[in-house]
Amino acid sequence: MNRPTEYTHKYTLTAGESNACGRMPLTLVTERIIEVATEHANALGIGYAALITRNIGWVLSRLSIEMTRYPIINEEYSFTTWIESYNRHFSERNFAIHDGSGAIIGYARTVWVAMDFASRTVADLTAFEREAFPTADLPCPIPKAPRISPLPPEAENESYTFRYCDIDFNRHVNTVRYLELILNHWPLEHHDRHIVRRLDLMFHHECRFGETVRLLVSTDGDTSLCELAKGSERAIGAKICWAPLS
Amino acid sequence: MNRPTEYTHKYTLTAGESNACGRMPLTLVTERIIEVATEHANALGIGYAALITRNIGWVLSRLSIEMTRYPIINEEYSFTTWIESYNRHFSERNFAIHDGSGAIIGYARTVWVAMDFASRTVADLTAFEREAFPTADLPCPIPKAPRISPLPPEAENESYTFRYCDIDFNRHVNTVRYLELILNHWPLEHHDRHIVRRLDLMFHHECRFGETVRLLVSTDGDTSLCELAKGSERAIGAKICWAPLS
Repeated sequence: MNRPTEYTHKYTLTAGESNACGRMPLTLVTERIIEVATEHANALGIGYAALITRNIGWVLSRLSIEMTRYPIINEEYSFTTWIESYNRHFSERNFAIHDGSGAIIGYARTVWVAMDFASRTVADLTAFEREAFPTADLPCPIPKAPRISPLPPEAENESYTFRYCDIDFNRHVNTVRYLELILNHWPLEHHDRHIVRRLDLMFHHECRFGETVRLLVSTDGDTSLCELAKGSERAIGAKICWAPLS
Repeated sequence: MNRPTEYTHKYTLTAGESNACGRMPLTLVTERIIEVATEHANALGIGYAALITRNIGWVLSRLSIEMTRYPIINEEYSFTTWIESYNRHFSERNFAIHDGSGAIIGYARTVWVAMDFASRTVADLTAFEREAFPTADLPCPIPKAPRISPLPPEAENESYTFRYCDIDFNRHVNTVRYLELILNHWPLEHHDRHIVRRLDLMFHHECRFGETVRLLVSTDGDTSLCELAKGSERAIGAKICWAPLS
């Protein structure tokens, strides 16, 4: 089996995929990260088809994205991914995002946990060969995800109940939906004037169909701390660093 | 310029893209239809880049999808599209959906209107060459979109206000968001037991950021009529034919 240490997928941003500013939405960046991670894992023999034979699946645990700019309509771009490290419970997978001219426009870091679908707890990957996890020592010059402190009691507060289109094949809420819920906190005019320079998204507890969460947001300068809470428990934590859209 | 009369794009359904039943969601079928239409139009020189020079863009006006089954996780599938007819205001574009073995699993019909972005009214495509619209006489054995009658006063009723992630580059609500809003009317258990055999979706008036719509739904047997209404005006009409999930 040929096991590529890195994997690249090229895309062109279609008009229909673009946001209101004609740029690649952060939600699509997140979808592409999940897609190329999936494709690389499949190529390594550690994808959905291999893991499901042991009732295991990859679940995204942490996601950090830093973009200097976002592709515009009809622009080519590519995502390159590689494994930075792994152990028998999780794997750290990084990404470099290039524009059509080959210039770097962003990086991302992810942490994936192997989940046992029967027990809904962390699985053990020891049964899979070490060779299936070839690590690469490529540069990913962005910090790892920070700890997100508890939000202040005066944080803004709204609630949302998860519905059919929010749910994925794991029967929990899709990663991208959490992000949409957070980004929807701000009006269109804010997004017309700002980009997300950096996003950190931490998945603590999965949410399911019919559950209601509260979105808490606290903004200080160009940084917003966000939390999706189920009762008193943090399900999702997020930190957004905004930059003016130039 | 080489102008292909038909265009095919092959895909594999990833786990992350699948719905709660491990199948291709109807929303993704819709995204693929828009994507391959875009790619074919680009190849014909009548895509976003060509039309925007005259401040024109394609806007989906009607969409009908009939599926006998939906691809499952890791299954290959393809969308083939061709132009059935066109005139100086709109174009009828059809689709055949094949599974990995080459068997037909669905068809779709779309009507696209050329919109003048300055006046927000129907544009005139006379300036584009006839050769840019090569029609093909391929089979698409599903009926055209029906008229959707007014919903009864006792229709179920809920409201929704459009937010940032609902808005696309035309600065109106994305096609897929309307469909999500409609599909979210039903609980997960309904979708676990049924598939959408046929969808008709009619776009009468565009919706924008911050607007509130009422979703009306009236179900009789295996058929649901739906409407997204702005005040007394129908913005979107939909008809869904359900089939038991076997």
